[in-house]
Amino acid sequence: MDEKKVRVGLAGYGTVGCGVAKIILEQADSIAAKTGIRLELGCVVDLDTESKRPVELPEGLLCDDINCILNDDTIGIGVELIGGTGAAKDLQLAMLRAGKDVVTANKALLAEYGEELFGCARENGRCIAFEASCAGGIPIVSAIRSGLTANRIESMYGIVNGTCNYILSNMTSKGIGFEEALLAAQQLGYAEADPTLDINGGDSAHKLAILASLALGCQIHLDDIYVEGIEGISRDDIHYGGEMGYCLKLLAICDHTEDGKVSLRVHPSFISKDDSLANVNGAFNAVSIFGNAVGELTFYGRGAGMMATASAVVADIIDVAIGNSRAAFESLNMRSHEEIKDDIVGIGESVSRFYVRLMVKDQPGVFSQIATILSENSISISGILQHEGEGPDNTVPVVMTTHPTRQSKVSAAIESLDGLDTVCSEPVCIRIVDIPEDKD
Amino acid sequence: MDEKKVRVGLAGYGTVGCGVAKIILEQADSIAAKTGIRLELGCVVDLDTESKRPVELPEGLLCDDINCILNDDTIGIGVELIGGTGAAKDLQLAMLRAGKDVVTANKALLAEYGEELFGCARENGRCIAFEASCAGGIPIVSAIRSGLTANRIESMYGIVNGTCNYILSNMTSKGIGFEEALLAAQQLGYAEADPTLDINGGDSAHKLAILASLALGCQIHLDDIYVEGIEGISRDDIHYGGEMGYCLKLLAICDHTEDGKVSLRVHPSFISKDDSLANVNGAFNAVSIFGNAVGELTFYGRGAGMMATASAVVADIIDVAIGNSRAAFESLNMRSHEEIKDDIVGIGESVSRFYVRLMVKDQPGVFSQIATILSENSISISGILQHEGEGPDNTVPVVMTTHPTRQSKVSAAIESLDGLDTVCSEPVCIRIVDIPEDKD
Repeated sequence: MDEKKVRVGLAGYGTVGCGVAKIILEQADSIAAKTGIRLELGCVVDLDTESKRPVELPEGLLCDDINCILNDDTIGIGVELIGGTGAAKDLQLAMLRAGKDVVTANKALLAEYGEELFGCARENGRCIAFEASCAGGIPIVSAIRSGLTANRIESMYGIVNGTCNYILSNMTSKGIGFEEALLAAQQLGYAEADPTLDINGGDSAHKLAILASLALGCQIHLDDIYVEGIEGISRDDIHYGGEMGYCLKLLAICDHTEDGKVSLRVHPSFISKDDSLANVNGAFNAVSIFGNAVGELTFYGRGAGMMATASAVVADIIDVAIGNSRAAFESLNMRSHEEIKDDIVGIGESVSRFYVRLMVKDQPGVFSQIATILSENSISISGILQHEGEGPDNTVPVVMTTHPTRQSKVSAAIESLDGLDTVCSEPVCIRIVDIPEDKD
Repeated sequence: MDEKKVRVGLAGYGTVGCGVAKIILEQADSIAAKTGIRLELGCVVDLDTESKRPVELPEGLLCDDINCILNDDTIGIGVELIGGTGAAKDLQLAMLRAGKDVVTANKALLAEYGEELFGCARENGRCIAFEASCAGGIPIVSAIRSGLTANRIESMYGIVNGTCNYILSNMTSKGIGFEEALLAAQQLGYAEADPTLDINGGDSAHKLAILASLALGCQIHLDDIYVEGIEGISRDDIHYGGEMGYCLKLLAICDHTEDGKVSLRVHPSFISKDDSLANVNGAFNAVSIFGNAVGELTFYGRGAGMMATASAVVADIIDVAIGNSRAAFESLNMRSHEEIKDDIVGIGESVSRFYVRLMVKDQPGVFSQIATILSENSISISGILQHEGEGPDNTVPVVMTTHPTRQSKVSAAIESLDGLDTVCSEPVCIRIVDIPEDKD
């Protein structure tokens, strides 16, 4: 087989950039043997050309001038790994206008400006490949875009942020609090110095916007997605939920209501310990997709990290070089946001089961007060957990789970409960997500 | 987006054929909206044009003459779902020579005659798409071929036969014997009337040949693969293995020995109950792949059945129509079997741990005899299980697990043990497979 030489320009020489360079430098021969594509690093651009990196580049390859990529016509593919939505956007647009196909891992940028970037790519006859933007090394973008085209995707449940999953896994297995778990994650490099966008659910929402757009065939906007992070999670609730058979995960969810509307949300979710997503621990990611023909498909792997993400970036580079990505990109017919926006329900209309914990005064009549308020809001209790003689200051935790209920009703009940003088601290309310079971 | 009309000729109107027709007939609109490809059934061919099927075709579409596909130039894609390696092979060759791309789920044919068929496709400038040939609805072929191109695949462990997994799951959960579990599987349609190729491991070997060829980038032949089925498995061994923390699965395995040789095998395997593959129950399939960059990736879903397999077939049809499959097929550079054959080790040289069960006379000195034989063969015991006072005819089961040992040594020891007059029935020997853990 004749080899086709493909020169790559890499913008952003941080963790993932180093991984990409390492694979191209070390695996070019084996990739050429398998695919006929010989990858060559044409240029690596980063503002920081001084710091020591874990991967040594050949002399003269690293520079700080993006024009070295833009003006080099021998470079056919531009890889944007600088992140963020400012300079990265200008850079992707410039690469496309300079006639280069773009490969990126930048979920924030695609979630916010995907339409504009895709439009620019089409105008210039180029493509954008973004497998690495969601769930790192897991080939979930191509699975949804190509593998599941014959399906109507009914629902999708993803653990797509490794930082949150690492923190929640550690809180669960070690019984530690959020702050301690976050600190441990930072010390081990699983959380950034500023972890806000991870723990507040924003990063998961970016990925959900991308995956849901592909799954639904419609442009999904970030503000279609309800987002709640894990900052407020206490180890007590993980513990009590565990006693009731649940495991806490931050899930990105796309599903349909009974009347066919779409619900998009990211929030802490109690799921059954028997669900396959309950066994996804540490910094790993997993996504379960339910298609009307294929049933359940679950994908599991590393959602972040130097080499796992680089694996997806380089796979995309090869796919672009082969022509696969171009074909896939051109056939990607995403309808406008206009066509779906009225079919998306807000969180108030979404229905789920709930875990509710109240810290109440240990005195007669309290339970009757609580039961009355729930009943007035048509909320039906499915389980109750109250241990004898626990809690500080003569308070005891009362933990309840509900049958499926509309969010707006639960919010109203929580407000009333919070007003009781026997309820001593703000009620805790966590959604219970019943992931469908595809069984024989 | 302009629609591209693509006419499909379907050969074989059995279970999967009905699923494919159903999707094309019912989902053509939504597929066109998502991809710009409008699928149309040009012709459905089956020798049996009379039997009632679960899917009703439009009048005049079903016939028994394959020339209706071959001679119709408006049909660009031929789907071969008749199965087997005889007529199916001639048909695929004829389709390719008639200028049609081929989509197939026929693993037996690809495993045996893949080289010839791929060669014919290349000569005629066509492609063969075969996502549905392995693990049904799980997009594992494209994951290995495209998603993991940047990786050296170090090992692969697959539950790729739903019939065997259904039988073993039932034997495990219900404590029933093989015959009873097989009968139940047949009654529920999870096993064929003649289940030989499923339960003897042959079907898993076909799939392993295809997946390993892609993973290694070399033509793998069926006789490179050691195959052992589940016919001889007793519920006692599932029970004892379970007591020791193991779960029995039929695994298709591709891994490397310490000195870099390739080992390819299908056999009943005890795996840790904590491994994710241990939770794959019923007719489901799953494949865990370990790449040098990406780490572990695990894929889970339905490996068979009308709609799951049809989902993969139709995804392939769309991929061919888009041009993806063509690009991927042309870039698939599979080296010849000559280049790898000396690097494949036979089962005798493979190393693993073993589960051994002996039914021995309950008398003094027996254990010493056993220990001596194991020691003479340099086999080190890692665990022993012997319950008091069990077994018929004054025999007791002695169950042992070994440390990693070369197969040839274990075979020699088993032969010696079998020769002891205190060992009352043929020793049982099952491999224990330690699937790597990719952990933080």
